[in-house]
Amino acid sequence: MAPLALFAHDLMPVPAKLQPGAGRLRIDRNFAFIQLTGYREPRLEAAAARLVQHVSQKTGIPMTPAVGIHAPAAPLIIYCDHAAAPVQSVREDESYKLTITEAGARLDAPSPLGVLRGMETFLQLIDLDAGGFGVPAVTIEDHPRFAWRGLMLDVARHWIPLEDVKRTLDGMAAVKLNVFHWHLSENQGFRIESKRFPKLQEMGSDGQYYTQDQAREVIAYARDRGIRVIPEFDMPGHATAWFVGYPELASAPGPYQIERQWGIFDPAMDPTREETYKFLDAFIGEMAALFPDEYFHIGGDEVNGKQWDANPRIQEFMRAQGIKTNEALQAYFTRRVQALVEKHGKKMIGWDEILTKDMPHNIVLQSWRGQKALADAARQGVNGILSNGYYLDLGYSAAHHYAVDPLGEAARDLTDEQKQRVLGGEACMWSEFVTPELLDLRVWPRMAAIAERFWSPAGVTDVADMYRRLGAVSRELEFLGLTHVSQYDMMLTRLAAGGPVTPVRTLAELVEPVKDYAREAARPYNQFTPLNRLIDAARPDSETVRRFAELVHRMNAEDLPHIRAYLTSWRDNQAHLAPILSNSALLDEDAEISKDLAAIAQAGLEALDTLQGGAKHGPEWLAEKMALLDRAKQPKAELLLSVEPPIRNLIEAAR
Amino acid sequence: MAPLALFAHDLMPVPAKLQPGAGRLRIDRNFAFIQLTGYREPRLEAAAARLVQHVSQKTGIPMTPAVGIHAPAAPLIIYCDHAAAPVQSVREDESYKLTITEAGARLDAPSPLGVLRGMETFLQLIDLDAGGFGVPAVTIEDHPRFAWRGLMLDVARHWIPLEDVKRTLDGMAAVKLNVFHWHLSENQGFRIESKRFPKLQEMGSDGQYYTQDQAREVIAYARDRGIRVIPEFDMPGHATAWFVGYPELASAPGPYQIERQWGIFDPAMDPTREETYKFLDAFIGEMAALFPDEYFHIGGDEVNGKQWDANPRIQEFMRAQGIKTNEALQAYFTRRVQALVEKHGKKMIGWDEILTKDMPHNIVLQSWRGQKALADAARQGVNGILSNGYYLDLGYSAAHHYAVDPLGEAARDLTDEQKQRVLGGEACMWSEFVTPELLDLRVWPRMAAIAERFWSPAGVTDVADMYRRLGAVSRELEFLGLTHVSQYDMMLTRLAAGGPVTPVRTLAELVEPVKDYAREAARPYNQFTPLNRLIDAARPDSETVRRFAELVHRMNAEDLPHIRAYLTSWRDNQAHLAPILSNSALLDEDAEISKDLAAIAQAGLEALDTLQGGAKHGPEWLAEKMALLDRAKQPKAELLLSVEPPIRNLIEAAR
Repeated sequence: MAPLALFAHDLMPVPAKLQPGAGRLRIDRNFAFIQLTGYREPRLEAAAARLVQHVSQKTGIPMTPAVGIHAPAAPLIIYCDHAAAPVQSVREDESYKLTITEAGARLDAPSPLGVLRGMETFLQLIDLDAGGFGVPAVTIEDHPRFAWRGLMLDVARHWIPLEDVKRTLDGMAAVKLNVFHWHLSENQGFRIESKRFPKLQEMGSDGQYYTQDQAREVIAYARDRGIRVIPEFDMPGHATAWFVGYPELASAPGPYQIERQWGIFDPAMDPTREETYKFLDAFIGEMAALFPDEYFHIGGDEVNGKQWDANPRIQEFMRAQGIKTNEALQAYFTRRVQALVEKHGKKMIGWDEILTKDMPHNIVLQSWRGQKALADAARQGVNGILSNGYYLDLGYSAAHHYAVDPLGEAARDLTDEQKQRVLGGEACMWSEFVTPELLDLRVWPRMAAIAERFWSPAGVTDVADMYRRLGAVSRELEFLGLTHVSQYDMMLTRLAAGGPVTPVRTLAELVEPVKDYAREAARPYNQFTPLNRLIDAARPDSETVRRFAELVHRMNAEDLPHIRAYLTSWRDNQAHLAPILSNSALLDEDAEISKDLAAIAQAGLEALDTLQGGAKHGPEWLAEKMALLDRAKQPKAELLLSVEPPIRNLIEAAR
Repeated sequence: MAPLALFAHDLMPVPAKLQPGAGRLRIDRNFAFIQLTGYREPRLEAAAARLVQHVSQKTGIPMTPAVGIHAPAAPLIIYCDHAAAPVQSVREDESYKLTITEAGARLDAPSPLGVLRGMETFLQLIDLDAGGFGVPAVTIEDHPRFAWRGLMLDVARHWIPLEDVKRTLDGMAAVKLNVFHWHLSENQGFRIESKRFPKLQEMGSDGQYYTQDQAREVIAYARDRGIRVIPEFDMPGHATAWFVGYPELASAPGPYQIERQWGIFDPAMDPTREETYKFLDAFIGEMAALFPDEYFHIGGDEVNGKQWDANPRIQEFMRAQGIKTNEALQAYFTRRVQALVEKHGKKMIGWDEILTKDMPHNIVLQSWRGQKALADAARQGVNGILSNGYYLDLGYSAAHHYAVDPLGEAARDLTDEQKQRVLGGEACMWSEFVTPELLDLRVWPRMAAIAERFWSPAGVTDVADMYRRLGAVSRELEFLGLTHVSQYDMMLTRLAAGGPVTPVRTLAELVEPVKDYAREAARPYNQFTPLNRLIDAARPDSETVRRFAELVHRMNAEDLPHIRAYLTSWRDNQAHLAPILSNSALLDEDAEISKDLAAIAQAGLEALDTLQGGAKHGPEWLAEKMALLDRAKQPKAELLLSVEPPIRNLIEAAR
């Protein structure tokens, strides 16, 4: 088939094979007459109705009432060969073939999962040109590179209501993700109803939890979209919220309160008491019946062992059993829990720490540590998924995450069979700094770039093309009801305190969050801290900065006026922003960064004068500007001036 | 109390009395501890919880879990004296008193209705300044000028789903409206379930109707917000959708189809057959039981009489009964229907046509004709509400509607008692050109200006101040979840066909819809016509045009560079927009208006040169520019260039 580059499409993820055709299939309200053939089930009917609705939303062409008009030839014929597994399994066939000509479109798939994936491709293909809405003639044969393509959502540190979860599933379906990993318990909250142990949610959630009916609703909603739901109950650490209602589970007497701070804390389950396993047996049994997926996530990360060290009874147990270290004690616990998970018909999944030498090989390792841990596990015959490099909370750009591959350098020497054990990956949305208001803004559109890494061929790595398509998929997601753009706008509106929003937006587009865990280190945060500052709105990616950097990189003569216009507006922004800053308690911390922006923009203008034939600057000038840039690149108010590097390049070019 | 102008607040509607105090009450997460005192009911508890949630959304301060923190002194104490009527009646006491000092706030009201109104005022008072979020110290004593303050929503011509109705109610509550008039049946659709006559919805709605449970849900939702729900079943005309299932109701044999075109049509109920009244007796009985409000709207407008003229049996009936005209025949029908409405315990409301001389005086007249009709009715002892002048579908500005008063010139000579019979008014959102996607964009924020006309003292008429506060209330509504801004953004994104949105936005901000019924005359429209063009996005109000007009009006020396910057960007927009226009089938019709904009902006720049001391222009120049302006002011693609008048002023000033 032809190289993809010859055919500029906006698809994300990029399909495995794409052959452009000639002409275009027009989309009008007759699109409502999708025809389903072959194997039928309610999920397919619902998906077809949803596709019609999404096409209508994208185009603005009313399509719902397919009445009062004569039924024409079906514009899209779908053929599904057979049913998928009743409970979606890991290695299902998700392939599909989409054939579009001027005369009509055909979507063929072995099972409903492929139909779902192909429908999303069809929706993305629709665009508007001079002739109206349509899809280009094309033949696509597509299947995912990795079987496990997930998003982990932490609904425990900050509560995320049901409707926000559903909206997240809508977005996931749009980019062909297939695993929703629901991080349901934490030190800061226990978020699902247990009928066996009701004090878990009654005392551990501030009343903010999902009922079991709501969980079933989410599972059905996800299944309709070809998405598995895996619950996580983190143990033996990250479990303070359990201990509020059931202090006897812990390794120190209590009483316990819901934790309000962020970090790693001492409380951990007592691995030495049989009552702990009795409780977990009943609890896991209850939850295993609620969640149909074959995998059950038991967490297992970040136990600091302090409660164990301090408990003489636990120390005595370790001596008696010949358990030498806390790691070994956790391994003992995990092995016992794994047996319970298996007893209730599930396979265990957990973070790196669960992989100990006597662990059965039917588990899945979720690695926050990295590709090496996965490769090591694969050599041992253990399946794994990668999350290291895909933490959406750490302030990195889409390009950063896009560059991470589940089969990275560390997997180079694996055999093909071992490589098959790297099942895929999951992005992680930890919620220390995420509220429902910020959820979409933090997940989207970056999640789509990671989804492409999980689905598309390994060779799809062009970052510029990724960003072009990311802009398109971001618009797609808005039409589906995602709120990442409107949330951003509202945050800026709030920050402006009734003043003009434009100067706030100008600054916001030129800053990005500090990386990794710098934010937690910057000031004390807890569950009640308002997340309503510029750092909360700031995006890790800026189209403005990318454009400016590209202009500076090319440095064509005809680009120089554009560079000047950018720099002038940034220098002048300070005057517009100053009165707003001084009237907004939320923005005043950004005064210094705004001044830095003005100063380096002015320096950039001086450099531009030179480049456009003005007076040359001496070494003192350069030294002074470099010092200015060095100051400007320091984080302030948890923000980085993302436009500093290209301005530095400009100034260095003027040397 | 002090003149309002001394205290710049953002309240809309403006309260009856406002006395500024000294200082400011800080808003933080302790606001969650609202205290309810005096009379209690679930509606008040729900309203307090909603207020906390809205304050949290507006400020970004987490407030939901009022746990883990020590309960402080309540920041807002609410005292409610007694219950309101179980079914909200027309002349309820909605007054409240709000007292805010640095130390705390108090809201006193005779009944829950006043509490609801006062809560909205409190929410609007919150702003952000250099010290953080807070409310200014103030004493407000407030009550509405008119008892009936409504919005009529036509959910029949285009279907409006339940969630959109609820969102509309949210917005209504925010600006203290108290009547939701639900226009449920039309030629183009019958939108509510009848259990007695199920073919009404089964054959008359394309499956798009509310179940009775959903109607009850809306009624409860509205009651929680102090809003009455009045159903309208338009008869004997505007009723084609009834006849699809029940052709025997009509005055010609049928069969009937749901009408897809807009306009006035011939089908009308047969007023001469007893079976018609038997049907209506049962139907009104069913609906009267469903909708608790004391009023029941029977429409009554726009019967063209053609089916009656053509039916020999009806003609014979008229001769036998001595009924001379179709108007008299309709009066006979309406009198019979009124008796049925009364039999089922309701009072009748209808459009102008229902007021005939033998009609009982306990009806309410809703006037699409104007204040004179209302004044005439008041003299006859009949209550009325004004809708003429408040049609949101006709493309008029907020200022236009704001200038219309239910007690206008025509009411000048009424006695006080007669004036009391003008109960208020209702804005009307007819939906020929409204889909769910466009609903908020068409209703908001203009509805808020009309709501102020209905609530605030008659002397509150400063248009510039109205627009200032309308901007603030528009932001408030966004934080409540209204989508008028995000809908607009999505429409422009779609129009740009993947290209840059900014040039599309620039043009969009400078155009407005044609007025009155010019749009229907411009091209054939029907229920299936896509509403996805620039005319559909175009707002009747433009802040940009208002600002520019103000600069031209002042013509201060320091404003001239701003005027030049505006005109330059408008002239240059054509070059940016042209490639988008030629690639977007939805936008290409706007090519001429974009060229007109560039041309008159260039003319404005030439005028500005003169005004800034350049060469004077001769009369030929002026004549040429006037011809240009005259062409530019002609409607194109159903749009008007709203920036033409201020540019004309500029050019005339340069003469």
